[in-house]
Amino acid sequence: MTEFSLIDHFRRSAMPRPDVVLGIGDDAAVLDPPPGQWLVLAVDTLVEGVHFPKGTPASAIGWKALAVNLSDLAAMGAEPAAALLALTLPGDDAGFVPADFVEAFAGGFNALASTHRLALIGGDTTGGPLAASVTVLGYLPKGQALTRAGAQVDDDVWVTGTLGDAAGALALWKSGVALLHTGGLRERLDCPAPRVSAGLALRPLATACIDISDGFLADLGHVLAASGVGARIEVDALPVSLALCEAFSDASARRLLQLSGGDDYELCFTAPVTQREAILAALAAASTPVTRVGCIIRGTGLTLFDADGRAVTQPARRGYDHFAEDKR
Amino acid sequence: MTEFSLIDHFRRSAMPRPDVVLGIGDDAAVLDPPPGQWLVLAVDTLVEGVHFPKGTPASAIGWKALAVNLSDLAAMGAEPAAALLALTLPGDDAGFVPADFVEAFAGGFNALASTHRLALIGGDTTGGPLAASVTVLGYLPKGQALTRAGAQVDDDVWVTGTLGDAAGALALWKSGVALLHTGGLRERLDCPAPRVSAGLALRPLATACIDISDGFLADLGHVLAASGVGARIEVDALPVSLALCEAFSDASARRLLQLSGGDDYELCFTAPVTQREAILAALAAASTPVTRVGCIIRGTGLTLFDADGRAVTQPARRGYDHFAEDKR
Repeated sequence: MTEFSLIDHFRRSAMPRPDVVLGIGDDAAVLDPPPGQWLVLAVDTLVEGVHFPKGTPASAIGWKALAVNLSDLAAMGAEPAAALLALTLPGDDAGFVPADFVEAFAGGFNALASTHRLALIGGDTTGGPLAASVTVLGYLPKGQALTRAGAQVDDDVWVTGTLGDAAGALALWKSGVALLHTGGLRERLDCPAPRVSAGLALRPLATACIDISDGFLADLGHVLAASGVGARIEVDALPVSLALCEAFSDASARRLLQLSGGDDYELCFTAPVTQREAILAALAAASTPVTRVGCIIRGTGLTLFDADGRAVTQPARRGYDHFAEDKR
Repeated sequence: MTEFSLIDHFRRSAMPRPDVVLGIGDDAAVLDPPPGQWLVLAVDTLVEGVHFPKGTPASAIGWKALAVNLSDLAAMGAEPAAALLALTLPGDDAGFVPADFVEAFAGGFNALASTHRLALIGGDTTGGPLAASVTVLGYLPKGQALTRAGAQVDDDVWVTGTLGDAAGALALWKSGVALLHTGGLRERLDCPAPRVSAGLALRPLATACIDISDGFLADLGHVLAASGVGARIEVDALPVSLALCEAFSDASARRLLQLSGGDDYELCFTAPVTQREAILAALAAASTPVTRVGCIIRGTGLTLFDADGRAVTQPARRGYDHFAEDKR
């Protein structure tokens, strides 16, 4: 499969949308954005051996390359519209990429894209070490972006879903457990579900929002720094999955995964105390579990407490830094 | 320099624009597009050892990563507005990227960005084999996109600038000549100048347009296929630089570079015969040399003729296919 047939492959499966004037196939794509909207744009790259283990199924790579970007749109409260895909693929000596890899990759990508009515409008394929860089574009009504900078003193701190599952799967895999045997955790690592509908539901309710990609402490830290506030977090309140409890019986190991593990793609957001009922109702309607885990305080930095009100020491490593971490 | 300080580095040098609501630093960027405009989007990746030789200066990589994308906007007649950069950088064992590399890369990127008042609004940096993937966004008035599909029978075929220079530099380098000694050709390979102002000037005049990245024959072939027409090209009319003539005294070797060499980033476009004077005037105003090289004919495919009207055989390899070519 050469570059041109690969592009054709994606073009045939592109989702039709009224705002797409010109999709894949010219020098550039052309969009006619709906009036009164702001554009929201993000880019994220997945590199084999860095962001996913060698041997990850091609369909999962395709899914995840889009998912991590949709998660960024979700954190802004934006509605996904279009994506561009820059795919770097190792070919054989004759330059041909295995067609089954490309089909599986496109299958995973398109499965998630169609869920969100997102159109793939452009792409580029090059030969080289396996990597996928996706740019997403979404819309939101003017003036309604959810940013990291709006957290207010006395706001609640919330997180969606459960924390630490993807990092748990990775830790098991690193310790020699086959990914096949990591239960539900593996699905969280390979095929995270971006919280798009939750982000849309939170737009009128939250004061600040971020997606948890680098780890809960690191990402909440970004919100606190951008908002100029501090937070008090009850670590025993952090949502945990049954699968993580079963795989890690040691509570402190589990807590480390929840606090510092990357790749959750849950949302962490702040909202006024007066919005508690509205948030529970809105996220129930969006089929998204949500948990209140602490509150915003005056000052800077983050303090952790357990259920008995005792201070908990923060782990030395707060988050995942692509350059500083061992190459996972 | 870690990921976060690298992002800061780019953020500090970002071009301010009134349509940028939120630039680098949140989960996603936010743009407020001018009313009445279509959005034009393209993505292109450069991989070390594939799209530029190892040892290319970091400033040239930064420049070229943006240039190849601006060239796509130029081919659509769009005005550049914003870019997102996904940069994959090899770090040392401790994960630190040499600050001087990043500064030089950013210097090259920003030099070209500021020329076109383009804002870098988002980015992602990951550890891995050196690659830069840039997504650009531009605007054009609704309904005025230049595409590949509009060429009409009897239109003239034009090209800007000169052809074959970048491929000439690469051929010299492959044959063992140090890039330092390839004269003006090397500048064309390392730091191509995208024909943005020419694209804007051509918007009301051209019927079809493409940028020459894969080679003249391959890219003109895309226009012919999209437009459902054929072309007759006079090979002796193809514009050639003095530097290429000096470096390649053999006329047939030179012709092969002009016809099939990649990385020219000139525009190839078609326009009615009645627009000849207007085109010469508009491109003179845009300081862009332009040459008429043939005409569009009924049918399909491309025939080549010399100055005496004799048929010229097409080279076996018409263009550059990233997967099929040897890894340059």
